This record gives sequence, C-alpha cells and structure tokens, in this order.
Amino acid sequence: MRKEIMARRNKVKNPTLAEVGEHAVIDTIMRHAPSTRNGDDAAVLDHGAPNSRTVITTDMLVEGRHFNLDWSNPAEIGRKAITQNFADVEAMGARPVAALLALSAPNYTRLQFVADLARGIGERVLDYGAELVGGDITDGENIVISVTAVGQLGGSLPALRLENARPGQILVASGGIGDSAAGYALISRFGREGVPEKFAPLIRAHCSTEMPPGRGFVARAAGVTAMTDNSDGLIADLGTLARRSGVSVNVLSETIAPSPLVREAAELVGEDPWKFVLSGGEDHTLVGTTFGPPPTGFRQIGTVVRHNSMGEVTVDSAHPHYREGWTSF
Amino acid sequence: MRKEIMARRNKVKNPTLAEVGEHAVIDTIMRHAPSTRNGDDAAVLDHGAPNSRTVITTDMLVEGRHFNLDWSNPAEIGRKAITQNFADVEAMGARPVAALLALSAPNYTRLQFVADLARGIGERVLDYGAELVGGDITDGENIVISVTAVGQLGGSLPALRLENARPGQILVASGGIGDSAAGYALISRFGREGVPEKFAPLIRAHCSTEMPPGRGFVARAAGVTAMTDNSDGLIADLGTLARRSGVSVNVLSETIAPSPLVREAAELVGEDPWKFVLSGGEDHTLVGTTFGPPPTGFRQIGTVVRHNSMGEVTVDSAHPHYREGWTSF
Repeated sequence: MRKEIMARRNKVKNPTLAEVGEHAVIDTIMRHAPSTRNGDDAAVLDHGAPNSRTVITTDMLVEGRHFNLDWSNPAEIGRKAITQNFADVEAMGARPVAALLALSAPNYTRLQFVADLARGIGERVLDYGAELVGGDITDGENIVISVTAVGQLGGSLPALRLENARPGQILVASGGIGDSAAGYALISRFGREGVPEKFAPLIRAHCSTEMPPGRGFVARAAGVTAMTDNSDGLIADLGTLARRSGVSVNVLSETIAPSPLVREAAELVGEDPWKFVLSGGEDHTLVGTTFGPPPTGFRQIGTVVRHNSMGEVTVDSAHPHYREGWTSF
Repeated sequence: MRKEIMARRNKVKNPTLAEVGEHAVIDTIMRHAPSTRNGDDAAVLDHGAPNSRTVITTDMLVEGRHFNLDWSNPAEIGRKAITQNFADVEAMGARPVAALLALSAPNYTRLQFVADLARGIGERVLDYGAELVGGDITDGENIVISVTAVGQLGGSLPALRLENARPGQILVASGGIGDSAAGYALISRFGREGVPEKFAPLIRAHCSTEMPPGRGFVARAAGVTAMTDNSDGLIADLGTLARRSGVSVNVLSETIAPSPLVREAAELVGEDPWKFVLSGGEDHTLVGTTFGPPPTGFRQIGTVVRHNSMGEVTVDSAHPHYREGWTSF
C-alpha cells in the first residue's frame, strides 16, 4: 500500500512524455531555453550586420553511439550538442546566433530528461549570446538529438574554408588536445563514478565539452584563412584540411604533447597518450592556418609545408603512429 | 552455389552503408543533391536581399511513425520531408533557399536507399530554386530523418505570424484539404499495391506531398497577415492560429467540402470524408487571414469573426464534428 502511494506520487512528480503530452513537453523546453522566436511555423532571426551571410550546420547524436546516459547527464549532453555545432560555425569564422533542436524520444521518457537537456542547451547558447529558436519533438524508439546551428558571417573577409590553407603558413590551434579521448578512456574503464576526482577536467572535456566563444571570429579577423575543429581526430581533421587545400602539413610534437593529466590517465588505462592526442577527436578545439602570428588564444603547432594533392600530414616530418579518426559506419 | 554467386553479385551491386563507408555515403548524397556549399564545417549561404532576415525550421521523421518503407519509396520520403519543411518557411511568407539533412540509419541499410532519398530531396529543393547545403549522417538503430529548412524573408512587411489574425479578416486557403488523409486511409486498408489506380492523386498527396513554390511569398505581398500550414489537421491548426491571435474563426463548409475523389475513398474504407478534411492534416496546404481579397492561388474558406481568447473554431457557426489533430506523444 505504501509502495503504491509512493509509486503514484513518483508518477505525479516525475511524469513521462506520454503522461504530460506534446504541448507540456514543448513548454518545458521553452521554459529552460527561452526565446520569443519559438512557437511559430518557423523562427525569424534578426537582421545580421550589413552584408553578413548566414552560416548553417547540423549534427545528429544517437543514444549509445554519441552519448551514454549511464555516464552523461542530460544537461551535459545538451551542452555538448551545442558546443559541437557552434564549433563548426566558429570554424568558418562566424558568430553562432541561433540553434534548433529536433528530438526523438520514447514516450516513456521522463519529462525531467527533456527539462535537463533543454537546460544544458539553454545555458550553453547563452554563453554565446545565442538562442534556441525552435525545433521539433517526436515519439521514437531511441533518443536521437539533432541540433542545427546558425551563425552570422559579417564583413568582407572570406569564410575560413578547408581549401584556403597555403604553403608557407603556420598551423595554429586553441585548447587542449586529447583531453576528451582521455576522459572517455577513463570512463570506459572505471565507470564515471569510479574515475578519481583529479581527472575531473578530462571527464568534463568529454561529457560537456566547452570552448571559449568567439575564437573562430577572432581568428578570422586576425588573418587565419583556413580552419576546422578537432572533431574526428587531429590527424584525420588536419588530413581533410590538407587534402582540400592541396597542401601537406607538418605538426611539431612538442607543441601538442599530452598534458601531465592526459599522460597519467593513459598510464592508468594502459594506453599510449599520443593515441588520445592524434586520433581522439571530440575536443572541438579549433585548428587553422595563417601567414600572420597566432591569434589571441591560439598557439603555433606546425607549418603548411608544400603543395601536395594527397594532403599528407606528418608529425616531426614523419608518419604519425595514429591516424585513424572517427567514422560513422 | 548459384545462390551464393547471386548473393555476392547482389552485394557488389547493392552495397550497404557499412560496406561502402561514410565518405561514399556522403558522396552519394552530394551526387544526387548537388551543392558547392556542402563539405565544409558549415555551409555559407549567399547574401540575402537587402534587409532580408533568415527564417529557419526543422522537422524530424521517424521510420514507422512518419513514414513507412512498405508503402513509400525513399525518393517520395525525401520529397515529402522537403515539402513539409518548406511549407513551414512559406507559412511565414518567406522564400525557401536551403536545406540540411541529418540522417541516422542502421549500417546494413542499402546505399541505394540513401541515393534515392537524396534524389527525392534534390528534385524537390530544385523545384524551389533551393539547395541541400549540408548535413550529417550517422549509424543508428532506426532510420531517422531530420531536415532543416532555411528561408529568406525580404522587404519590410512583417512575417506571417500566428498571432497576426484580426477580426473582420477573411480566411483563405490554397490547395486540396483532406487528400493526404484519404490517401493514408486507402493505403492502410488495401496496401499501396491494392489501391485502385484512380486514387493516384490521393496516394501522391500522402506519399510525396507537393505544394506550388512561392504561395506564402505571394500571400505576404498580397496582404495576408497571419498564416500556417495544414500539418496537424485543419481544425487543430486553425485553433492554434485563432488562440495565438486571440480571435475565433468560422469556416464555411461548402468551401472545404471533400472532393468527389475523397468522398469515394471515404466510402470505400467506411469513413466519414469530413474526418479527412477536418482532422487529417499533412496536406501542407496554406491557410491564412487577410483584409484584402484572396491572393492568387487562394480561395476564401471563412472569416475571422471576433476577439476570443479561447481561439474557437466553428464550421458553419457550429462546433465541428472532428477537431482532434496529430500529436506526438
């Protein structure tokens, strides 16, 4: 009897999507990630700066493949989904201004999951001065999160395209490389609860990846011509940039050496820390090329060495030990 | 032995996503829906007209819920996915210019499925002079299609928001209402192959919904102030518009009477044809309000009668027999 009362109370306090219905789900999202643009057939954005162009990208995250509710909480997943999309906008040299969320979830999913996801999204878009301006929700067998990011590319400088790297430029990067992969390795081995507290920065890098807003925008103003984000793995992403630009690039190992914390994590799980750095990905740090000095927040990590239609990437002028990055199938 | 050779040949001629890998899947999509903007971290759109604003919307389609491969082919699904997103852009009075496709599919899915889906998308975006400018593909347990549509809203007239209906206006609509629901009912009863040929227009309305490009754009120029598309059901969608505008609307039944073909379909499946018209939805026809005469391509279907915070919708000044529309959970 007591159990039944508890269950009933739990049901009221922690309802499912089926129990509250579509409108309540949408209201919950809009309460946690508020925008006046939401709620019509489509969202109308503000005028951009004169001559500005719209930049747009999308990423789809599938439960069990891109995130795992056993070790990431919904707010973290929301924050990471925004970061990885906004990183793609920043990688063009643009400023993120809006996001859309399309969400499929089983109807027995708790409303609290959606509330927390939306809260994480709302927090992160606010970091960028952007808004969640719309979306779609639907019943489905799995949780699938599709985020679309919109940016504004102002001024007359070209976008930071993959094909704009040139021989003679330096290679620049912002942020810690390998942290996310090290965090993932620790969680896979020990479970999130079992990871020693001192590795918290690596866990955070994996579960709710952050990047300081405006890095790509600053880089474009400071003379960077080509840029991408480290999502699939450093060597893989540099390889794409090199191939698309018809150049080869050389990375100096000392500039991307694993941090002491990454080394310690690698030792604990019995992995080579260089694997995390070279093929880990998911850091969403920005990597670019410029004839000028590194922009604020960036450091030099190598050089664009020559025309090369194969898009060769070397580390200290040799073939790197780890090249393979993330692929979808 | 012969069977084994056939199987091997089939494997080569009709490979799966796992067999060809991510890059080949992306190449296939880009070949069937070409765009020079695709292939970077994000797509950069052209400058809009002076003073134009960006309009954006997204819809997620889940296999077995929003489409069924037993009766829709992938090209139809692609066309319908674009239509329903572009209808939302048109419902703001804007011109669709670009789309993004995020796709999750099991790795044993045939590449041909993706090719056909992309072909349908490519055909339909071309109808609008728009482009598929980017996207994301990922492994997943189910086929989930998430399309984002981008539009440009030029000029100084306001967007056609749900809250802009005013008492004294007439209600206008374009296109056939109830056709999609009638087509769905026929397929559900007889299977697609079993539906008599004469119902082809209804089947097409359901499986690869079309709308003439530019209807929303024209409506805005011609004085329409509020607009939505008939996606969840006519009474449900008009109810949303009425509630958001704080008005009530009255529909004249003779102006939305089921077509002879819809009537015949309803008789065959033993349903009331008015159910298809009033609560069917998925026609993606546009419904709006204006003080002026109906714009080209629209007809009057009723009037905005008075301020009413409940957003009442009547048919011939009485409560309609069917009100319930589509809901997600």
